[in-house]
Amino acid sequence: MREAILEAKSAGERGEVPIGAVVVLDGHIVARAGNRVEELGDASAHAELLALRAAAKAVGDWRLIDCELYTTIEPCFMCAGAAILSRVKKIFYGAPDLRHGGSQIFANHPIHVVEIEGDLLADECASIIKSFFRNRRLERDGRAAKGAPA
Amino acid sequence: MREAILEAKSAGERGEVPIGAVVVLDGHIVARAGNRVEELGDASAHAELLALRAAAKAVGDWRLIDCELYTTIEPCFMCAGAAILSRVKKIFYGAPDLRHGGSQIFANHPIHVVEIEGDLLADECASIIKSFFRNRRLERDGRAAKGAPA
Repeated sequence: MREAILEAKSAGERGEVPIGAVVVLDGHIVARAGNRVEELGDASAHAELLALRAAAKAVGDWRLIDCELYTTIEPCFMCAGAAILSRVKKIFYGAPDLRHGGSQIFANHPIHVVEIEGDLLADECASIIKSFFRNRRLERDGRAAKGAPA
Repeated sequence: MREAILEAKSAGERGEVPIGAVVVLDGHIVARAGNRVEELGDASAHAELLALRAAAKAVGDWRLIDCELYTTIEPCFMCAGAAILSRVKKIFYGAPDLRHGGSQIFANHPIHVVEIEGDLLADECASIIKSFFRNRRLERDGRAAKGAPA
């Protein structure tokens, strides 16, 4: 999870919503990614989906059997669905996402059952996101106060 | 939907599960794709997700506001989630997917509400899938009868 947090911080430095993910197989990181939605102009370029795609390349198979996905925030529906399709063994996430979290789709899914465990370094993962949005609001308010477009 | 069906048939000819999708803006097709999971070795390479990504490139924005997604089968959780993230206006699908369909996530989603309408040319869309899997079973049974690996 420490490595996923580094990816999240790097994403934030690039101006992206700071979420990071790594894929682990047999105790080794086989892929890592941070959110790149704005950079790539691609709504699907979430950290988790990019990490899963990179892991499929790294292991030479889209079936990521025995792989574990670590992500700093509870995955959304898209990323949770991608983890199921990828046959990931287990997801570890940091902070829960009460608005957009898609964990409920894991229960008894007919294709593949993914184990899930949350609240790993949750406070640290959540504080990265919170400070990113707080700073963004402050910047917008600052620009608005100067009369520039928000 | 006719164009999505052509994409589905092309996918089947490539040995992929035959599902196709197109993205329409102002009555014009801006992107089209068929399933390419096996070809790309990427579990996320569903027709809908590929079409959404291609549409984002075509319109120069990951926000596909006012775009409509046509897909031959009810989208899975991943693709339904991607449509929400992409801010798609409406999804039209062909046949329902009673096992893997992810339409229920559209109801009152906090990010963006996507309209959804199913059962367009549903019989034709369903028959493409059914005949693909029937042929695959027959091929496997034929190989097994000859003693080759299934």
